[in-house]
Amino acid sequence: MKIRASSPGKAILFGEHAVVYGEPAIVTAIDRRTYVEVEDSKNIEITSEDLEVKGIRIRPGKRFETKEDVSFRRASYIFTAIKVLEDEIGKINGARVEIKSDIPIASGLGSSAALVVPLIASLAFHSGHELSKDEIRKLGWRVEEEVQGASSGVDTTIATFGGTILYRRGSYKEIRCKVPLVIGFSGKGSSTKRALEEVRRRMRKNPEIIRGIMRGIGQITRKAVIAIRQNNLEDLGELMNLNQGLLYSLGVSSRELDSMIRCSLEAGALGAKITGAGMGGCVIAIPNRNEVRVGIRLGGGIPIPVRTGERGLEIESVEDRGKRNNKEEGGERGGKRRSG
Amino acid sequence: MKIRASSPGKAILFGEHAVVYGEPAIVTAIDRRTYVEVEDSKNIEITSEDLEVKGIRIRPGKRFETKEDVSFRRASYIFTAIKVLEDEIGKINGARVEIKSDIPIASGLGSSAALVVPLIASLAFHSGHELSKDEIRKLGWRVEEEVQGASSGVDTTIATFGGTILYRRGSYKEIRCKVPLVIGFSGKGSSTKRALEEVRRRMRKNPEIIRGIMRGIGQITRKAVIAIRQNNLEDLGELMNLNQGLLYSLGVSSRELDSMIRCSLEAGALGAKITGAGMGGCVIAIPNRNEVRVGIRLGGGIPIPVRTGERGLEIESVEDRGKRNNKEEGGERGGKRRSG
Repeated sequence: MKIRASSPGKAILFGEHAVVYGEPAIVTAIDRRTYVEVEDSKNIEITSEDLEVKGIRIRPGKRFETKEDVSFRRASYIFTAIKVLEDEIGKINGARVEIKSDIPIASGLGSSAALVVPLIASLAFHSGHELSKDEIRKLGWRVEEEVQGASSGVDTTIATFGGTILYRRGSYKEIRCKVPLVIGFSGKGSSTKRALEEVRRRMRKNPEIIRGIMRGIGQITRKAVIAIRQNNLEDLGELMNLNQGLLYSLGVSSRELDSMIRCSLEAGALGAKITGAGMGGCVIAIPNRNEVRVGIRLGGGIPIPVRTGERGLEIESVEDRGKRNNKEEGGERGGKRRSG
Repeated sequence: MKIRASSPGKAILFGEHAVVYGEPAIVTAIDRRTYVEVEDSKNIEITSEDLEVKGIRIRPGKRFETKEDVSFRRASYIFTAIKVLEDEIGKINGARVEIKSDIPIASGLGSSAALVVPLIASLAFHSGHELSKDEIRKLGWRVEEEVQGASSGVDTTIATFGGTILYRRGSYKEIRCKVPLVIGFSGKGSSTKRALEEVRRRMRKNPEIIRGIMRGIGQITRKAVIAIRQNNLEDLGELMNLNQGLLYSLGVSSRELDSMIRCSLEAGALGAKITGAGMGGCVIAIPNRNEVRVGIRLGGGIPIPVRTGERGLEIESVEDRGKRNNKEEGGERGGKRRSG
């Protein structure tokens, strides 16, 4: 049996950090995805070049054997996903797993959730368990919590369901969203942990002021829902600029992010801000002209134009064992179906 | 009779823009001053090279004659000061007025108030009227209101009294302040009018959010008073960084200001923010090392190290008519006295 599943990366449009303090956030699935392909094998063997996991072989008995120069952090999402899944459904079948991704890692674009969700879905399916989307989401969330220490759950939710959602304290509501977006990647990894710690430090130091800023971000997010529904890009851009100042006050901006944002705005963007935890990672801009991409480049970043509100987890193809050695045919006939 | 008077420029430490909406601001007098020298003459003749007023001659009958390439805006402060003063005390005596200043103009450092206050004081004194400091402050405020359309009165207050003050809705309270400061001038004039309009536009567009931001600035300013009293520079620096994000949200930052602020912080500043209206003009930074000056230079600005809490309006010297041609002697004997 051969299964191919995929999940999208995400961009937070509004409300990062404030979401940790109970305010809502708006998150959208982008058209960059992670693909997981599972084939029958005796052992569990995992390979991925995109994710800097050069080669992991998991054998019965001596489970977590890794080759040299493996990215241990990345690998720990994989190991933990298998552990969490086996806690849920019991021992899984041996499988050769190949992971491909076009989401930059540690960029704040949700690359880990986009890996964990289709990995869990395809391994479960391969072992004869068809989990619901919500079950997969929750298992993914548990993996993120175990690896990161804490997780708002927003990444695994959007990786599972796709679209654009208003997220608050674990519950979510879909919003129709057709917002054009350019992402600017600083080329530097975002340190979620360091960013969360800095915000916590500022909260301890000046609790009243920072709580006020969190409430301000919440107000901005709620107004942004209206602007998204009306597809009012001017209003949305202004709200992004307001949100960015408050993120600056939280201490999570950086020279690179400032510079990309400034260049985007000078190139005509209707609004621009950090997306995700900050301190490296990415910015988003609402372009009104193509020059925004040029602006981001001038600002020292890598422009990534994306579509928003993309599809969530998909089991893209399932080939049965008999067709395994006939790729052309198998690809054609492989039944597409959505999980959940 | 020959009179020499001077007033300091100012830097707003906290609360610009919010002060227009009823929140407090902290303002300090810096050791950059404007000097006004008044001598007997038949007509009113005014010269100043520093203030871009190349030559203005005011004659009885045909009052407001100006030479070519005069800075009309600068000149209008002078004309209006004379008009307002004459409304108050009646026709003033003819005088040759020489103005010298080491405050960059249109920089947000209060160069116009530092001109208007000693001009009114010295011209009034020259015409035999010794006004109190508070009378001078109020006349100066009226001048600023007439020329600018509106004025918070904070500039004329600090130009008159000096020191460091907490200012709110026209009333003020002195604070002891020994904060070291480096000012970074962008070399670009600040447009107070354009900045005030942008803030008003944002307020109309998102009143709840912007009101919240103004309240946030007010909270920061009140905490800063405590930090100043304790001379706690670390806390003060952090509060400056918080305030800067909120100023960014008000839309009054710019590439140049962002860049100077970022370079100051990277050079080890404890905090840095816009001072004054923004959209050009200056930033301030609390240095903890000398490199902050270098940082500002790298950020494309001109570093101006200043002392804070400097003296206000001073009538620096008065020579009587008989001693007019004997500078050395006159300088020695000229009675120093403070007005008010």
